[in-house]
Amino acid sequence: MARRRKNIPGPTVERLCRYHRCLRRVARRGVKRISSADLAALAGVSPEQVRKDLSYFGSFGRRGVGYEVDDLVAALEDILGCKDRRVAIIGVGNLGSAIAGYLADSERGFEIAGLYDNDPARVGHMVRGMRIKHVNRLAEDNQRNKIDIAVLCVPESSAQQAAEDAVSAGIRAILNFAPITLHLPPKVVVRDADVAADLEWLSFWLSAH
Amino acid sequence: MARRRKNIPGPTVERLCRYHRCLRRVARRGVKRISSADLAALAGVSPEQVRKDLSYFGSFGRRGVGYEVDDLVAALEDILGCKDRRVAIIGVGNLGSAIAGYLADSERGFEIAGLYDNDPARVGHMVRGMRIKHVNRLAEDNQRNKIDIAVLCVPESSAQQAAEDAVSAGIRAILNFAPITLHLPPKVVVRDADVAADLEWLSFWLSAH
Repeated sequence: MARRRKNIPGPTVERLCRYHRCLRRVARRGVKRISSADLAALAGVSPEQVRKDLSYFGSFGRRGVGYEVDDLVAALEDILGCKDRRVAIIGVGNLGSAIAGYLADSERGFEIAGLYDNDPARVGHMVRGMRIKHVNRLAEDNQRNKIDIAVLCVPESSAQQAAEDAVSAGIRAILNFAPITLHLPPKVVVRDADVAADLEWLSFWLSAH
Repeated sequence: MARRRKNIPGPTVERLCRYHRCLRRVARRGVKRISSADLAALAGVSPEQVRKDLSYFGSFGRRGVGYEVDDLVAALEDILGCKDRRVAIIGVGNLGSAIAGYLADSERGFEIAGLYDNDPARVGHMVRGMRIKHVNRLAEDNQRNKIDIAVLCVPESSAQQAAEDAVSAGIRAILNFAPITLHLPPKVVVRDADVAADLEWLSFWLSAH
């Protein structure tokens, strides 16, 4: 089913990811059906919020019965478009290795397309059964076998250049762990995973409590 | 100055962290003054948004002149309450080591209070000049020298327990890298840093483009 993806509020998309995570978790415990109240409690939002967020994409669940867990997981994967996305990790130090391990172990449907680094001391080494390749292989690899998302795990000083290289190689989505704002063409989707910003966010609410 | 911290929209707090990051970056380049249009462009939002977000906390900048960069950085640090926060890293594998390195190198004002693990093979080892301690030292360390935030870098299967241990030790803010929703008392502030959710978010917008 082609689903509407434009004009969806950003916070709704954040919450869809959270619902997906909670549902996958209950599915693994063998739960077949869940009420919007229970899903809301797991996700830490109100039941009205769950229903409103899902209503952008159609009609889910039945009044008094709830949602079929497997169906809603499948619908969310369809909505999020996250099935079988191929992810390249650029920069394979501690962080890149941790993320490679995480993706290899996770069952969230992301496939590691390749590990890339520009440090000759790292290129050729094995991490999680995969050989680290030089970043200059990125364009060729992307042409041969589409890379959907690049995860940037390089130091701050090389992040902008690495991001531009990824974009030149034809990659249109970047998860950026470097603590800088990347400047890239508008066609590229960027998400910042900034640990310091996360800690600042926590500091704010810690003071507000 | 005591600043208002209640009833601030969540997205505003997210953006304040982003403004802070952009401003620190221009400050390091020696920039003394910035217009709201330039700050907005760096942060990827509209100038109206910048002005509205800041207006919750008082009056900043001057019409036609802009903001004094150092003053606004100081004001944002005050608003976010992020100066000299002490951070414990729990779980010192690849991810925990990467974050220890990141915080040690960063100048964002966070201090590493300690590195903790429950794996006897890791306890006692040095990372970034700090000795890894057993997690059962957390409560004592927190009493002696306040720990503000715990960064959970443990596997999914031990995350809930590790979080409860941190809360028992008196810690009230947690940055959670495990891909689960933690269930903790409401007094505890939790932020999820979920790589899979970040990738799902990117997948959504990649499909929407």
